[in-house]
Amino acid sequence: MRGYAQWMARLVEALTKLPGIGRRSAERIVFHVLQTQKEEITHLAELLQSVKENVSFCQICHNFSDTPTCHICEDPGRDKKLICVVEDPKDVTAIEKTGNYVGVYHVLLGALSALEGIGPNEIQISDLLVRVKEAGVREVILATNPNTEGETTALYLAKMLKPLKVKITRIARGIPVGSHIEYADQATLTKAIQGRIPTEERL
Amino acid sequence: MRGYAQWMARLVEALTKLPGIGRRSAERIVFHVLQTQKEEITHLAELLQSVKENVSFCQICHNFSDTPTCHICEDPGRDKKLICVVEDPKDVTAIEKTGNYVGVYHVLLGALSALEGIGPNEIQISDLLVRVKEAGVREVILATNPNTEGETTALYLAKMLKPLKVKITRIARGIPVGSHIEYADQATLTKAIQGRIPTEERL
Repeated sequence: MRGYAQWMARLVEALTKLPGIGRRSAERIVFHVLQTQKEEITHLAELLQSVKENVSFCQICHNFSDTPTCHICEDPGRDKKLICVVEDPKDVTAIEKTGNYVGVYHVLLGALSALEGIGPNEIQISDLLVRVKEAGVREVILATNPNTEGETTALYLAKMLKPLKVKITRIARGIPVGSHIEYADQATLTKAIQGRIPTEERL
Repeated sequence: MRGYAQWMARLVEALTKLPGIGRRSAERIVFHVLQTQKEEITHLAELLQSVKENVSFCQICHNFSDTPTCHICEDPGRDKKLICVVEDPKDVTAIEKTGNYVGVYHVLLGALSALEGIGPNEIQISDLLVRVKEAGVREVILATNPNTEGETTALYLAKMLKPLKVKITRIARGIPVGSHIEYADQATLTKAIQGRIPTEERL
């Protein structure tokens, strides 16, 4: 890489492998590393390695966790009879940030996809069924993505869960809060109208 | 931090201390770390620590270097009689990337600033004078920033270098390549007109 000393080229190259980090950002990080306290960089390097070493999947919900079962499954304040099914650990983080969900999760670690050859055995479906059967679950919220794979997965799960006599719900698809009806695409608008709720129910 | 497990909160916090990394980018990096090869993360962590440990300042030019003298000062292909004076190692990287400069550098590691109480003894001026005196330097290019501190520093250096009978030049200030005269500020435009060069000299 033109203009860099070897040590700098190596670090810039390693940094640009991270998502969202281009050459310019990597350079700025290198100069920050050089100008900041040694303790801060040691701390960061150690955290990166320890996270990579110790974080694996929760045995119950398959969310990322540094303990055999994750902090959500372990939390006695969480409603274990309410399971929200998501495709990816990132979705757990997104929902957790709302601070409004009191149940637990089940991370599928993927979605059904005929194109990519991902069938029911490639994702964590079987132990969701076991959890629902054994734990007396009251409701399963299907929060897979509102795209082809996510909808297919939700339909499949609904079919598999039906015999278990559990309440099955799908997250609402509609107009995002703060946006304009005028700009919504037709599929979203169709879902928003189909999924309308009585005004006394929730505003 | 709401929505994060403790291990994730710690890594996100450490990452957001880096320049240009906000919460969202840090999150994306955490998920990348978890999903990528262990070797890649170990490599990055080790590079961060080794750069912090081994990179210091070049004894000659004060650029960052992992050896006592930097790769530019060590390069036999570089013209040691031509010194470009800059404020910061970042400026060296910027000029090196052009690939068009064949001389060496002198990094001041700062600029004179009455406001911040930075005088000639706080930055690397004295050994620039020694270098110019002892190494038979032909030309010194003053490439400090075109702001108050940089101009003050350039003026001061010009005064100090004058008795040494060396050619002293200042980088051209003018309209950036690719921009429009119409949008240039008055100070830049003034410098561009004052610094005009005969068309036969360079186009």
